[in-house]
Amino acid sequence: MKLDNKGEGDLVTYINGNRLKERIKLLSHCSIPSKGVTRLAFTKESLHAEELVIQWMEQAQMMVRRDEMNNIIGRYEGENDQLPVLMIGSHLDSVVDAGMFDGILGVVSAIEVIQFLSDKEIVPPYPIEVVSFCDEEGTRFHTTFLGSKAIAGTLTDSDLEKHDDQGCSIAEALQEIGLDPTLYTHAKRNVGDLLGYIELHIEQGPVLQENNLPCGVVTEFAGASRFNIRIEGKAGHAGTVPFANRKDALTGAAEAILFLEKIAKTTEGVMATVGKLSVQPGASNVIPGSVTFTLDVRDVDEKRKQNFVNDAFRKIRGISLNRGLLFHHEEVLTVSPVKCSNEYITIIENVLKDNSITPLKMVSGAGHDAMAVSDIAKVGMIFVRCKDGISHHPDEFVSIQDMKIGTKILLDTVLKITCYKGDVIID
Amino acid sequence: MKLDNKGEGDLVTYINGNRLKERIKLLSHCSIPSKGVTRLAFTKESLHAEELVIQWMEQAQMMVRRDEMNNIIGRYEGENDQLPVLMIGSHLDSVVDAGMFDGILGVVSAIEVIQFLSDKEIVPPYPIEVVSFCDEEGTRFHTTFLGSKAIAGTLTDSDLEKHDDQGCSIAEALQEIGLDPTLYTHAKRNVGDLLGYIELHIEQGPVLQENNLPCGVVTEFAGASRFNIRIEGKAGHAGTVPFANRKDALTGAAEAILFLEKIAKTTEGVMATVGKLSVQPGASNVIPGSVTFTLDVRDVDEKRKQNFVNDAFRKIRGISLNRGLLFHHEEVLTVSPVKCSNEYITIIENVLKDNSITPLKMVSGAGHDAMAVSDIAKVGMIFVRCKDGISHHPDEFVSIQDMKIGTKILLDTVLKITCYKGDVIID
Repeated sequence: MKLDNKGEGDLVTYINGNRLKERIKLLSHCSIPSKGVTRLAFTKESLHAEELVIQWMEQAQMMVRRDEMNNIIGRYEGENDQLPVLMIGSHLDSVVDAGMFDGILGVVSAIEVIQFLSDKEIVPPYPIEVVSFCDEEGTRFHTTFLGSKAIAGTLTDSDLEKHDDQGCSIAEALQEIGLDPTLYTHAKRNVGDLLGYIELHIEQGPVLQENNLPCGVVTEFAGASRFNIRIEGKAGHAGTVPFANRKDALTGAAEAILFLEKIAKTTEGVMATVGKLSVQPGASNVIPGSVTFTLDVRDVDEKRKQNFVNDAFRKIRGISLNRGLLFHHEEVLTVSPVKCSNEYITIIENVLKDNSITPLKMVSGAGHDAMAVSDIAKVGMIFVRCKDGISHHPDEFVSIQDMKIGTKILLDTVLKITCYKGDVIID
Repeated sequence: MKLDNKGEGDLVTYINGNRLKERIKLLSHCSIPSKGVTRLAFTKESLHAEELVIQWMEQAQMMVRRDEMNNIIGRYEGENDQLPVLMIGSHLDSVVDAGMFDGILGVVSAIEVIQFLSDKEIVPPYPIEVVSFCDEEGTRFHTTFLGSKAIAGTLTDSDLEKHDDQGCSIAEALQEIGLDPTLYTHAKRNVGDLLGYIELHIEQGPVLQENNLPCGVVTEFAGASRFNIRIEGKAGHAGTVPFANRKDALTGAAEAILFLEKIAKTTEGVMATVGKLSVQPGASNVIPGSVTFTLDVRDVDEKRKQNFVNDAFRKIRGISLNRGLLFHHEEVLTVSPVKCSNEYITIIENVLKDNSITPLKMVSGAGHDAMAVSDIAKVGMIFVRCKDGISHHPDEFVSIQDMKIGTKILLDTVLKITCYKGDVIID
């Protein structure tokens, strides 16, 4: 059967687009009042969202449990319950003023896949678990992948001491919702427990839209380095210090930022962003005495990323020297790149082709729970087109048709990975 | 008599340097606890400073009054009290974390001049008033020259409605210290009331130090324009939006800031400073969606300043267009340049020469009360060297020797302007 991307293609007509849309809408209401969706981990908004997800999982004939790190896991039994589990899903938490789809689409589409299997009484050889991971964004505790790291066994006792801006630690937040923080290691799954993990997520970038494709297959996740940079000069009166005497930290920072942009543009594969900047003392009539800014660098190639950073810092040191400024940098985060399973890449590629979608291989510049899960299992990832690449913003948008197509790709991928050989009878 | 700039020259030995230093130190203690001096208008720290000034004025045989805008005015009678008054002085308020000398040196040296006249029983033909202006800096109410504008009659009812960050208006602040805000116009002096106004102030720049001179004569005050500029792009995920799709407001702002620096450096006479900048949304992993920054431009030549601004904005608009960004600007402050009285410039030049100091003519890039007073009287200004040009900072420093020389220049200038023909007998 051929899929018509523009309209209601035959293959996706049996995916309930209205239910997907309705559920995403219901979850978007689990938010504190804000411009967009704001649903941080362990809050009453999150608990509300989890209750909805639990209810939908149960409707789809899943056995639901809340693990020790507050991941919601719904299990759909296969022919042989002793076989490893195929995990599918994403996360429920959001950034501040987020859109409705980030994470959510992955959870809701995974439930829809199981609802379909259950409706059609399809029993795949392997059991399937839908997971709704706790705190992927790291907005509340400034540490990402909380739930998926617990499952991968890479979370540590010291991670649980991290706290939010109100001083509440992760351990305390777990206690507040009735979980025993000393038991978090029980959430861990061992190598071999999982057949693999497949995540569906919005792209959060414009590549699919530009290629006029509803879905793509992720091959790898970029590694990331994050730096705090400080340029120090000397504050002075804006009206009285001649240019020859100025040590303006902001003009120095401006030169550094432009240079970073220039070399990032010409270094294939590297992303570099200065997202945060502050000027001290920060008065309109005072020459800036110091400037601090962040640098976020991403690349799937660790060595190329390191070379980029070395070149950038050598040049910024030179810019600073020429201007009589001091340059300091400190690495505050480093994440290694992760490759998706070649087997899963091929399966998803084939599923895309079977659905008449050109299988575009994509690199994920953003981090996802799949990166954490990759420590204990093969991972695969399906990207779904979002409008203009906008994400982490109230304007984030995915069409119903693309949600349906994405869910169909996930369903077909699940059937292929679990080696389901039976018929799929459509009414 | 020759003045030895390096040591205790003959001419300055009868200026009491220790008293100048001691009084400046006492006033520096009138501050809230902070890294430097922090003494905002109408606060208890200011009242404490005013009490000290009143006491020193009275010691110097002045009749002291607090006018309706809280200017402290000490009058030393001349031979003929019907003649217009020569006003000398400066301001008592400070910025946040200021140094000890800005404004203060002008008030303390003016009192010292009268103390000298009084000690020597010198009665000049004209009366002299020492003024300690209220709120020159504008730190509290974000409006400068409050006291000197009241005296010049350029303050308006709407100015009195301006309020501090706690919501207290100028009118309320006046009431709090027992003054009736409806009477502020009584502080006004008419054209003809003043013979002129002479202010001594620290340079707040490095020019005198570079020329190895203790004092200089100001010929004019630069005009200033202040703009709020906004560059709007589109926020996006730092890891997922390719460079070709980015509308990064910060790299655009960086290009604008570097261009401003470049043309300001090559446009003789223009000062341009970006002192304040903020990035929205301001997260390390988000491409900046918009950037706002201030632009402060100063020049004694209005036309040249306007041309500079026009050229700058044309280019920044072009930079923005090239990058798919929007550019907005709004003028939030404009101050016309002011010329000092040629007569006073010549007098101060001659006084400097008489004291064996090369008479360096200087432009003031900073604003001073003299600019406000120029609306009703001739003004003149003496700059005193400060270390490395540092001002509005706890490291602000003036040597005792330079304070003495400055006070001597002020004394000689006062004697010349008031046409004192008698002997000055030194013990």
